[in-house]
Amino acid sequence: MTDTRRLWSEAVNRLEPYVPGEQPKAQKLIKLNTNENAFPPSPAVHRALTAAEVDRLRLYPDPNSQKLVNTLADYYCLTPDQVFVGNGSDEVLAHAFYAFFQQAQPLLFPDVSYSFYPVYCNLYDIRFQKVPLREDFSLVVDDYLQPNGGIIFPNPNAPTGMAIPLADIRRLLIANRDSVVLIDEAYVDFGAESAVSLINEFDNLLVVQTTSKSRSLAGLRLGYALGSAGLIEALGRVKNSFNSYPVDHLAEVAAVAAFNDDDYFQNACTQVIATRAYTVAELKALGFDLLPSQANFVFAKPQGQSAKAVFDALRERSIIVRYFDKPRIGDYLRISIGAQSDMEALIAALKDIAPH
Amino acid sequence: MTDTRRLWSEAVNRLEPYVPGEQPKAQKLIKLNTNENAFPPSPAVHRALTAAEVDRLRLYPDPNSQKLVNTLADYYCLTPDQVFVGNGSDEVLAHAFYAFFQQAQPLLFPDVSYSFYPVYCNLYDIRFQKVPLREDFSLVVDDYLQPNGGIIFPNPNAPTGMAIPLADIRRLLIANRDSVVLIDEAYVDFGAESAVSLINEFDNLLVVQTTSKSRSLAGLRLGYALGSAGLIEALGRVKNSFNSYPVDHLAEVAAVAAFNDDDYFQNACTQVIATRAYTVAELKALGFDLLPSQANFVFAKPQGQSAKAVFDALRERSIIVRYFDKPRIGDYLRISIGAQSDMEALIAALKDIAPH
Repeated sequence: MTDTRRLWSEAVNRLEPYVPGEQPKAQKLIKLNTNENAFPPSPAVHRALTAAEVDRLRLYPDPNSQKLVNTLADYYCLTPDQVFVGNGSDEVLAHAFYAFFQQAQPLLFPDVSYSFYPVYCNLYDIRFQKVPLREDFSLVVDDYLQPNGGIIFPNPNAPTGMAIPLADIRRLLIANRDSVVLIDEAYVDFGAESAVSLINEFDNLLVVQTTSKSRSLAGLRLGYALGSAGLIEALGRVKNSFNSYPVDHLAEVAAVAAFNDDDYFQNACTQVIATRAYTVAELKALGFDLLPSQANFVFAKPQGQSAKAVFDALRERSIIVRYFDKPRIGDYLRISIGAQSDMEALIAALKDIAPH
Repeated sequence: MTDTRRLWSEAVNRLEPYVPGEQPKAQKLIKLNTNENAFPPSPAVHRALTAAEVDRLRLYPDPNSQKLVNTLADYYCLTPDQVFVGNGSDEVLAHAFYAFFQQAQPLLFPDVSYSFYPVYCNLYDIRFQKVPLREDFSLVVDDYLQPNGGIIFPNPNAPTGMAIPLADIRRLLIANRDSVVLIDEAYVDFGAESAVSLINEFDNLLVVQTTSKSRSLAGLRLGYALGSAGLIEALGRVKNSFNSYPVDHLAEVAAVAAFNDDDYFQNACTQVIATRAYTVAELKALGFDLLPSQANFVFAKPQGQSAKAVFDALRERSIIVRYFDKPRIGDYLRISIGAQSDMEALIAALKDIAPH
């Protein structure tokens, strides 16, 4: 092949793309590696995808996804101009990085966190500085009180699963009013406190959530940002300079149906939390060290065996978890909370694997 | 409200977002303003969206959309590494602008063309130079033989509907080997010659197509690029630095079903072309000047009335067409080819509107 790199923009060479968790093709696996929900989406989602809605695909979707925006505004007690929707929270985050974090001062985020953040920084040539979590992996907001062009962290954090209280986020916002503080709440529905209640108080707060985890819609690609109208306007300007119609018609219809079935959502979250409690107790009994998780996964350190060895042994038994070969976290496994039966199979496998 | 602009990246101020054609909320309109297909998608699309596929939404989609990529590769007689898919051709174009057109020399495109091109240039701070179409709106490839950091135009062009022959594109590619030539073939299936057959000959050719027009899936957001493996690799690097999963699971399933029902597609295109011929003949009989269209729309200049006056009068009769208040094209209306009955209603309305 000829050297097509001569045709690339220079910037493409500096990109270091994100590597998502494996989506194995094999059936019959127990898949605990990408924090998906154990439950299918609400049956209301399937009912909403009628033949008439499919026929309507011949038309463009509403570029503003107004029905979905209104549904989310009602759900979170906000106004529609405080809501932005996109093609998964990854796209919403990408637009937020462009809209807010191209600044003279560096963006701050934890050294152990969602590994897509530095990837966005490379994409848009954004300066960043990693702020180390404390020795016990706790995130202390005082560590972020330094000159910055923005602050972002997940709450609960990933891959630790550890949450910080709302009072800490409020304290950070009071002390940091002139750059955007983005709280990535992908996992908030499994027990942490959301910062949505602070939006009317702080115009520099942006909260990003997703339907991928607690609404069982990872396959649908629907994320959203909640914040002051001025921040939402900036996101709209970026979106309308990139893709006028990021949310397809079926995704809008499905997401509206999912938010309208709150009982199903509450019940699924309750079951995930119960299964997490079971999993934590069993892993502790097996001698694992666990960080306190408020997410739909646990971050667990095996004793007497390396994390990599346990990862490989589980894989041989058709159980896929996530192992990160990275500083500080190479001794841990991130294990998604699947169905109760999946977790029982995991515990049985770990007993089998354990050194005798 | 406080001034949230203090929180924006400087770049957001320079953005001039694209304004898509209106998606009116009112029912009972005859909507001929955004070049949608008159026919619903293939019935195979609805059949493919089973309850099992909806339940599978709890899992992430395949980040590489491999089934769809393989389907497209087979369909166009290419290899899978020559195919890239994205969330509508607008997203595919955005990634291509980032991947290829951030160059020292300016990007070239026609002065009358898809108005999203300068918007992408603003987004990524790309230099560009508009190349005027000739007086009769024809695109002459020799006009592009000048120093450039890339060339892009639609074939057929929009909003003129005029196509250029494959021989012209080949001549351009032979003379311009060191920057990417992107042919935007959104409307190619309605009568123009595709450049896909040149891909194995020219490593700098990228062809972008969409399922929005000829496959009746505008609401689904599925576009794709076809080109040399080296160009596709660059697009993949950008995509994986922006959003790992741009194509949702239902969109992948639906698009595969649509491409597998080629009879339906061929029949729909044939009917659109026949209805276009009817529309052209009737408009000419009414004294309109028409550019020769190979697209699913016509670009028509009324006689004895301004385009704006006809646009307004049609709107009063619940018929929506597109009017551009812009240099060179302010005397024309862009009219999508709808169902035969829609076009008969249009002609009747125009007879009613005509000065007596």
